[in-house]
Formats: sequence, C-alpha cells, structure tokens
Amino acid sequence: MNNFAFHVPTDIRFGKGQIQCLPTELAKLGESVLLVYGGGSIKRNGIYSSIRSMLEKFTVYELPGIEPNPKIASVRKGVALCKKYKIDIVLAVGGGSCIDAAKNIACGAYYDGDPWDLVIDHSKVTKALPIIVVLTIAATGSEMDNAAVISNPITNEKLELNAPNLYPMLSICDPTYLFTLPAKQTAAGTVDIMSHAFEQYFQSNDEAYLTDCFAEGVLKTCIKYGPIALRQPDNYEARSNLMWASSMALNHLLTVGKGGAWSCHPMEHELSAYYDITHGVGLAILTPAWMKYVLNNKTVARFAMYAKNIWGIEDSNEFAAAKRGIEKTIEFFKSLDMPTKLSEVGITSENFAKMAAEAVRVSGIAKRSYCLLGEEDIVKIYLSCL
Amino acid sequence: MNNFAFHVPTDIRFGKGQIQCLPTELAKLGESVLLVYGGGSIKRNGIYSSIRSMLEKFTVYELPGIEPNPKIASVRKGVALCKKYKIDIVLAVGGGSCIDAAKNIACGAYYDGDPWDLVIDHSKVTKALPIIVVLTIAATGSEMDNAAVISNPITNEKLELNAPNLYPMLSICDPTYLFTLPAKQTAAGTVDIMSHAFEQYFQSNDEAYLTDCFAEGVLKTCIKYGPIALRQPDNYEARSNLMWASSMALNHLLTVGKGGAWSCHPMEHELSAYYDITHGVGLAILTPAWMKYVLNNKTVARFAMYAKNIWGIEDSNEFAAAKRGIEKTIEFFKSLDMPTKLSEVGITSENFAKMAAEAVRVSGIAKRSYCLLGEEDIVKIYLSCL
Repeated sequence: MNNFAFHVPTDIRFGKGQIQCLPTELAKLGESVLLVYGGGSIKRNGIYSSIRSMLEKFTVYELPGIEPNPKIASVRKGVALCKKYKIDIVLAVGGGSCIDAAKNIACGAYYDGDPWDLVIDHSKVTKALPIIVVLTIAATGSEMDNAAVISNPITNEKLELNAPNLYPMLSICDPTYLFTLPAKQTAAGTVDIMSHAFEQYFQSNDEAYLTDCFAEGVLKTCIKYGPIALRQPDNYEARSNLMWASSMALNHLLTVGKGGAWSCHPMEHELSAYYDITHGVGLAILTPAWMKYVLNNKTVARFAMYAKNIWGIEDSNEFAAAKRGIEKTIEFFKSLDMPTKLSEVGITSENFAKMAAEAVRVSGIAKRSYCLLGEEDIVKIYLSCL
Repeated sequence: MNNFAFHVPTDIRFGKGQIQCLPTELAKLGESVLLVYGGGSIKRNGIYSSIRSMLEKFTVYELPGIEPNPKIASVRKGVALCKKYKIDIVLAVGGGSCIDAAKNIACGAYYDGDPWDLVIDHSKVTKALPIIVVLTIAATGSEMDNAAVISNPITNEKLELNAPNLYPMLSICDPTYLFTLPAKQTAAGTVDIMSHAFEQYFQSNDEAYLTDCFAEGVLKTCIKYGPIALRQPDNYEARSNLMWASSMALNHLLTVGKGGAWSCHPMEHELSAYYDITHGVGLAILTPAWMKYVLNNKTVARFAMYAKNIWGIEDSNEFAAAKRGIEKTIEFFKSLDMPTKLSEVGITSENFAKMAAEAVRVSGIAKRSYCLLGEEDIVKIYLSCL
C-alpha cells in the first residue's frame, strides 16, 4: 500500500431540511456573500427564493449564469465582485460547475493577477475566501474535495485547479434538491460518480484492499440507485445514496494507498473543451472504449475482479469474465439512456490528434496512468468511439 | 436514510516513515509537549527513542504507564502536569488507551475541576489542547474520532467521553509499528475493529446502502488480513489494511444515515470495568452470544444479508443463512485464538445483575439499540457466555 495523507476538513450537513443551518453558519464567517449559481434551475425549483429569504441579514451579491464546464470569464466576473465589494464568503448553489467556479473565485479574490494564472500554476494559490456549498446535483464530488476544473474557450483548455485551501468549509447536501433534476443530468451524474470510482479502482497497487472495497461500494450504489432515481425522481433512498456516493467518490477515500494519474477524465476533458458536451456523457462513451483498449495480460486480473465483485460474473477464464464485465458496463450506461458513440453527440474525428496531444500535455495519462497511453493510443480510443 | 453531519478534521499521515513529519508539525503548535504512553512496549521496539530524538528542540514532559482501560487517576496526573508546566501539546504514542487518556487530559487542562466531571458531563468540555497521535495498535479507531473511554475503578465505571474538539489534530499511522505487537493484541484489535463495524451495521435504517457497503468492506478486510497478520506479523499489506480499517470503522463513516445506540460495547464495558479484561476479548465472547439472542423475525433479513455478503452463504431459508453466518463469526474468532467463554477469562456470574443494571443506566442499550435489551436480557446474554 502506498503512503498517503488524508485530511478532508469539509463539514457535511446531509439530509432533508439541512439548509436551515445556513444563516447561522454564514454569520460565523462574515456579512457579505457572493451567491454563485447557474442557469436558473434553482429559481424554478424554489431553492433560490428559499435561500434568499434566509440571507435577509446579509449583503448579497449575485453571480448567476455559471455555465456547464465553467468558463474562466465567469470566474473573472466573480473575482472582480469579490475585490470591489470586499466580499467575505463565496456561496455556491448548484452542482460541480458552480462549486468549481466558486473555488477559483475564492482564491482569485486574494490574487493580484488573472485567476487563470492560478489554474496554470497552483503554487500561486496562497489563500482563499471561505467556500460554502449548497449542492443540487450529485455528480462531481466537488462538494467534498479541493479541486476545480475550469475551461478557457479561447485556448480550448479545460484544466484542473487544486490546492489544500480549496475544500468547501461547509457543504449542505439535501437529497430532496435532486428530485427536480432532468433525467439526463441524473444519468450523467451517475456516470460521473462511477467514472471517479473507476479511475481510482483501476490504479496501480493492488494491496489497498479496503480502498478497493469502498470503490466497489460506490459502484454498486450507482448501479442499484441510478435506475431507481430515473424511474422515481423523488425516491429519497435512491437520491440520498447517490448524493453521498458523489461525495465519497472524490474525497480521496477511493485512492488512498493507491495512486497514479487518471485516464478517461483527461480524454473526456478534451471532448468538452472542444465541443462543450456534458462531462458524464463523454465519460459514458469513453469509459467502455478505454476498458476494452487497456484489457491485457497485465490488467485482466483486476478487470475479472471488477466483473465478479460488481456484476457477479464468475468465470475461470479471466479474459472472458473481464469482457463480460465490460459488456455489463456498456449495457448499464445504455439503460441510463446515455449515448454510446461520439457521433451521437456530433463529434467527428477532425480534432482527435490535437485533443490527444493536449490530453498528454496537461495530464499524467502518458506517464503515470494505469496503462500508459500516448497520443496514438488516445486517438485510437477516440476513433473506436465514432 | 437519516440526516447526519460528517466532519472529521483529523489530518492522517499514513505509511512507512511518516513519523518524520512530527517535529515540523509539533513546531506549528508550541514548544512544550506531554508525551503520553503505556507500559514500555514503545521502549522495547525503538519507537520511544526514535521519537525522543526527534523532540530534542522541544521541552518534553512524560506521562508513562497508561494502562489498558485507561484510568482516571492517570488522566489526573496528566492534567496536573499540563497545568503546572503550561504544556502546549498532548502527544499520545500508543493505542486506544493512550489516545483516550490524552483526550481526557487535553480537555482537562482547560477545566478547573476534576477531569472525571468531563466524562460525566460532556457539556463541560469547552476547549482542549491539540492532540497529536502516533498510533501503535490497530483497534479502537480513537486516532480518527472524538471519543474516549475512561475507567474509574473506585466506582466500577467505564464511561465514554466525547466532544467535537477531541479529534486528534494529526495522527501518524505507520503500519510497521504493528510488526512487534503480541499476537493477542493483534487478534483482540481485529475483533475490536469488527465489533465497531457490527455495532453500526446492525443499526436501524436499512436505506443507508452505501454506508452498509463500507461496513462490509471493513469486515471483509479484518477477515482477510487478521489471520495473515497473526501468521506473518511483518506483512505490510495486512498491517496497513488493518490499520486503515481501524480508523475507518470509527470515524462515523459506518454510521452515517443510520443511528441508534450500540449493544455489545456497553455490555463489554461492564466486563472490563469489573474484571479489567482486554476489550477485544470481551467483545469476541459477547458478540456471537448477542447475535444469537437478537436473531428474530425482525432482524433475520439483515443477519442473512450479513451471512451472504460477508461469508458468501446463500440459503433461501433466511434463518438458516443467518445462523450459519453467526457460526462463521464464532469460527473466525476461534481461529484468532480468542476465548469463547467468560469462564475462560475467570468471570463468574456473581456481578451479572449489577453489571446489567449499570449497562442499562449508562448507555442507550435499553432505549435506542438495534434490539432493545433490558437488564434481564443482558443477564441472559452474560449467562449464555459462561
């Protein structure tokens, strides 16, 4: 088992009605709040008005319109507001995009230059405003981790920012907030959670047995409850398990004792950087293709273990078991109504070479991932998804 | 799923050689240290001299001799030292007993009266010195939780103290420190970890599926690696998995979304309060007896789930499956060379009535546990263990 540090200071308040703690908790931190949110769904489902009524005693500045795959331009707006009004607290109400933008804003507020500099060079993050989260989508796990993914459309870059002081101080996770999610977001979120578990389950060091058990728990939770949440959007048991799985999948619990760079995420980040597709959709297309591509004599034992422990597939022929496990994964994503081909989301091969080069440049995929993948490998994987 | 809060601020440094961070981390907190340790094993295995050499720049006061089932008298000594020398940091080097004593000392240092008052009334804990841990036994999970169990031999009381500010600030967990543990402690520690998982797995609310998956992971880890650690004391994979399982079993991860009072722990605390037996030994004797006693129409489905998910027992007759699961548990504890009867550890029935009354008085066993147990039930369980 590899050495590790584990330190997740986020205070999670989980369950129905936990929003009630918001004014008390904010009051401990200051009196001016930047409210960061997305495209208006929180206005339609009532969360916005409920929160605004709780914030009557605070000075609230708003940054609406955070887009999926949040853009550095939105971050810049937020940073400008924080600096101009000396804001005390960044409050993200939404999913991963809002939270990620809030993280970049929170550290940008203490930085003299352009906040994109911080994405490029994390060592420039020295301090951050307190980040408070009200979670409305179960997917990215950003509510309990210290990373953010920010896009720069001008350079076609989608990069990860992370720093120790970017953990949300408090995350309010009310599963009833997921009841009104569109089916596509429920499905894409479930795939995203699973992908986080996959990225860590398929990492070197097979000695971290307990860590692998936890990853299997997250995967089984998604497989059990993803379809239920689609059929019964207001099923509290399903929504609460998915919401907690989202946090558990990315708070480092599934990687401790293991390690290495991720594979599908850097490949997917290029898809959404170039085509702005939903992250979970890109992952649903790429993950099975990646699994097929990296299945070999070295990896077969773990893929067979995945097939057995997650899908109950017993077969003395490890390759046969592994392949059935991958097929089960594809079937599952299909059952969530996820696209299975890049062509279904309008992506053609024209940028594959550039995207592969960029994935290699900005990530550890060619140097530290489960099966090292160079540009040619990545292009082949993209091509197999057409 | 029940509402919950989850906030574990302990910074874990896990793995070989992590002790190197100790001087740097202590220096952030002050310059005087109370070194709390046990009966001398850390002197025999070299951990003591290694740590002392790292603390050359600090003023170190020592509190050796913390006993198993740590006594309030030791806590009082530690508190007196902290007050007299204005100590900045409490450094526990040992297992649960040392860490628990350190927690009571850390809050006692800021309390004007007797530290036993804090055990009786947790609301009196207002502040605590920083607690730093170097873990040398995988068992209690005290390295990553905010609770301590302290004994008062004069009153035959063994009670839990807990408060939000009793989380260790930093816990250094080096699995190689477990290599020299006596076999009995390895076995008792493994049972203790399993018991923590059982106490939470067998709690009401069957909707917390992911939480149950995690508990199953902890149980499987103990079952896989406990016997290996006994056969090969220096097996790093086994020791590291057991050490991490210890922390995961009691940092609230296995209870979130569920709830209720524990059962076997309050019954066992009376055994060790009256007879000073090893906690894990008492749990190994009581747990299967408790399982048999509470197996009924209401609980059978979960016991059958336990038999299936942990022991691979498939049987359409749930009672048959449940009973085989319990038998497997007994066989496993026997394989660790744990006693199976109270008579083997010199306990007779003379104090059972008093002990049962006390267990009911000081815990929620009769009001909030998985199957409510009154004094008569507890006496019956004790009797079945003779």
